[in-house]
Amino acid sequence: MQRTPDDGCGRFDDVRMRGFRERATVGQVCEWLDARCRALNSEEVSPANAFGRVLASPVIAALDVPPFDRSAMDGFALRGTETNGAGDYNPLTLRLVGQSLPGLPFDGEVIAGTAIRIMTGAPMPNGADAVLPAEFAREVGERVEFTAAIAPGRNVGRRGEDVAAGQTVLESGRRLRPQDVGLLASTGIQTVFVVKRPRVRVLVTGNELAAPGDAHQPFQIFDSNSPTLRALIERDGGVLESSRLLIDDRALIAAALTEPGADVILVSGGSSVGAEDHAPSVLSEVGALPIHGVAMRPSSPTGIGHIGDVLVFLLPGNPVSCLCAYDFFAGRAIRKLGGRSSDWPYVRQRATVGSKIVSAVGRVDYCRVRLESNRIEPISTSGASILSSTTRAAGFVIVPGDLEGYAPGTEVDVFLYDPLS
Amino acid sequence: MQRTPDDGCGRFDDVRMRGFRERATVGQVCEWLDARCRALNSEEVSPANAFGRVLASPVIAALDVPPFDRSAMDGFALRGTETNGAGDYNPLTLRLVGQSLPGLPFDGEVIAGTAIRIMTGAPMPNGADAVLPAEFAREVGERVEFTAAIAPGRNVGRRGEDVAAGQTVLESGRRLRPQDVGLLASTGIQTVFVVKRPRVRVLVTGNELAAPGDAHQPFQIFDSNSPTLRALIERDGGVLESSRLLIDDRALIAAALTEPGADVILVSGGSSVGAEDHAPSVLSEVGALPIHGVAMRPSSPTGIGHIGDVLVFLLPGNPVSCLCAYDFFAGRAIRKLGGRSSDWPYVRQRATVGSKIVSAVGRVDYCRVRLESNRIEPISTSGASILSSTTRAAGFVIVPGDLEGYAPGTEVDVFLYDPLS
Repeated sequence: MQRTPDDGCGRFDDVRMRGFRERATVGQVCEWLDARCRALNSEEVSPANAFGRVLASPVIAALDVPPFDRSAMDGFALRGTETNGAGDYNPLTLRLVGQSLPGLPFDGEVIAGTAIRIMTGAPMPNGADAVLPAEFAREVGERVEFTAAIAPGRNVGRRGEDVAAGQTVLESGRRLRPQDVGLLASTGIQTVFVVKRPRVRVLVTGNELAAPGDAHQPFQIFDSNSPTLRALIERDGGVLESSRLLIDDRALIAAALTEPGADVILVSGGSSVGAEDHAPSVLSEVGALPIHGVAMRPSSPTGIGHIGDVLVFLLPGNPVSCLCAYDFFAGRAIRKLGGRSSDWPYVRQRATVGSKIVSAVGRVDYCRVRLESNRIEPISTSGASILSSTTRAAGFVIVPGDLEGYAPGTEVDVFLYDPLS
Repeated sequence: MQRTPDDGCGRFDDVRMRGFRERATVGQVCEWLDARCRALNSEEVSPANAFGRVLASPVIAALDVPPFDRSAMDGFALRGTETNGAGDYNPLTLRLVGQSLPGLPFDGEVIAGTAIRIMTGAPMPNGADAVLPAEFAREVGERVEFTAAIAPGRNVGRRGEDVAAGQTVLESGRRLRPQDVGLLASTGIQTVFVVKRPRVRVLVTGNELAAPGDAHQPFQIFDSNSPTLRALIERDGGVLESSRLLIDDRALIAAALTEPGADVILVSGGSSVGAEDHAPSVLSEVGALPIHGVAMRPSSPTGIGHIGDVLVFLLPGNPVSCLCAYDFFAGRAIRKLGGRSSDWPYVRQRATVGSKIVSAVGRVDYCRVRLESNRIEPISTSGASILSSTTRAAGFVIVPGDLEGYAPGTEVDVFLYDPLS
């Protein structure tokens, strides 16, 4: 049977203790995910709570920003033509008849021969058409003396110059920047529609696993995948719906898979061909498992399926495989469901390969590397169970399926594990 | 008077309606901040809650990870030498005497002529020294038949191969990656010491400002700086202590500045030389204002001072100036107080200048730019009050103080406003 990454593909192959027959390629899996993952429905939030969220609809301005002509400087509002000829050796004066402060406008008119004190952001008074900066003026009694000429229109911000009423402020699909939420707030809008954050359930399975604080049994290990996955979900804009440690029990796994409340379920452990690897057959019973086995290293036992609309990722239990399979597939899906880009959430840096990076044709390799002065070295003896290989590494390099690896001297992209600052 | 960015520098100059006499350079201000900002004290959190936090002390492993030799594959644990000669045309068999599962080890010994079923991660039984992968074997009655030879030691993970007891798992100062919190959890540690997150108070001042949902007065504008600053603080790892909209009242500002509970206070608005710019003189009365006026555009009216240990930033009220002054100075301080790097939290991209970028010697310019196929164009008519200039821009370019600008064709770093994905 050809195992294609097609949702409607044939019956489940029970690979337990027999091995995978056909593996999907990384590219096929990503295509399958991209075709399946549409942004979730929207919810309303205030601009103050919208940072980092993705707009589900365009935002149209209901009013002009600013809603009036205003001063762009601290100084004096006047008629620009009345400053003609003013200079250091020819100070001129005007009669000071009032002031306009932000929120407290001048309610008279600036007639010929007069000026008013004005502050940045304050409404321009009728009659005035320019603002002379405070630096070039001083008050002398009831007059203002100034030593610079200013053209009509200078230092005046026009009504609607930032945002005009009726204008599209920001488009649908925009991931909101700090300044975006400020701009939205400036239009007086109280809520915007943003894509819901995917709710993600984490099921970490394994009889051998101890939770933090558990009495440590001789043949137990402490679970590392729950905290790693929780952090990755947070990074990708998901919401942790719940995180549970389960023993290898078919009924428990089935119950945890079918309970409503999640958009995505991540199952870590029991995804492969061992006798206790229940997750693939349970998932194929309660839902579908169109993808099981991916041509990559590590993470080849990854499975991807669904129960109705709920996407289910079977991530290998080995911590590096779990991280890698999450990053290639689950993170991509969570970001897409949340309206974000499917791009890698890592800073890229060009670097030169030092020692040869070995891979195999037909398989994508995820290779942890050290980075020194723009030269990378693969981290050796880095089995999929050695999580410290990903904490010692500066990042990783992806070797595509059509290459045998990278020769020394090749220029490649390194994906850096550390964020910007 | 020479205005230097020295904490102990002279008396406060009241610049209201007179203009700044001397401005500090951006470099001087950053030096002053870096000398003053040390990481805050530490607090204890669980690894599951430590993602993105900065370690305040090194973490030493209390136990080996894994705590026992284990299988790295699903397959059969045996004595490697007993597989010598096995191949597709020479299948060999061993007697199957039991199994070792994760958390359920085999409690006998694998003697000559025998093997046990074993799963990835399960403890290695006494007597066995290698694991033959399931792919090369099948069970036939009470025996296992296999078609590949495997050397002693293969597919066995050694006790402590990931982390050895007594080893430093991660160093102090490390900003924790997703895999870091997993690795910490794997050592069984229940809490780690991380640098406290700076508590940041936001005081947005201005009689003209309306809060979201307020009845909109004719000469009011809706506050945009509060949501922008809140987002920036979140991005930089700070905690919003409180956010308050204040009218221009000296007593209210003084009370809000002196109330305990914050590590950093951001005051937006009223930082300049206008008649209602109270913040500088109030701060100089209740604390100190060693820096007021910076040689940059926008944001030149920025002030930086302190009240005891509390850093106070006087950010201009114009929204672009507020964003810019935050990013140059306040964000840097918040990141340093939280133990992070002072680096810009923006992805950089090399790009070529299209139209000339104009600046002036002696001043640092923050220039918003469009970016198209690696070519940048400055956004024109981008006054400091036009926040939409920062939402239309792809990012910004910094023109250092010793340059008159950038000529067309120059290669420069663009700081991209959008995050990675």
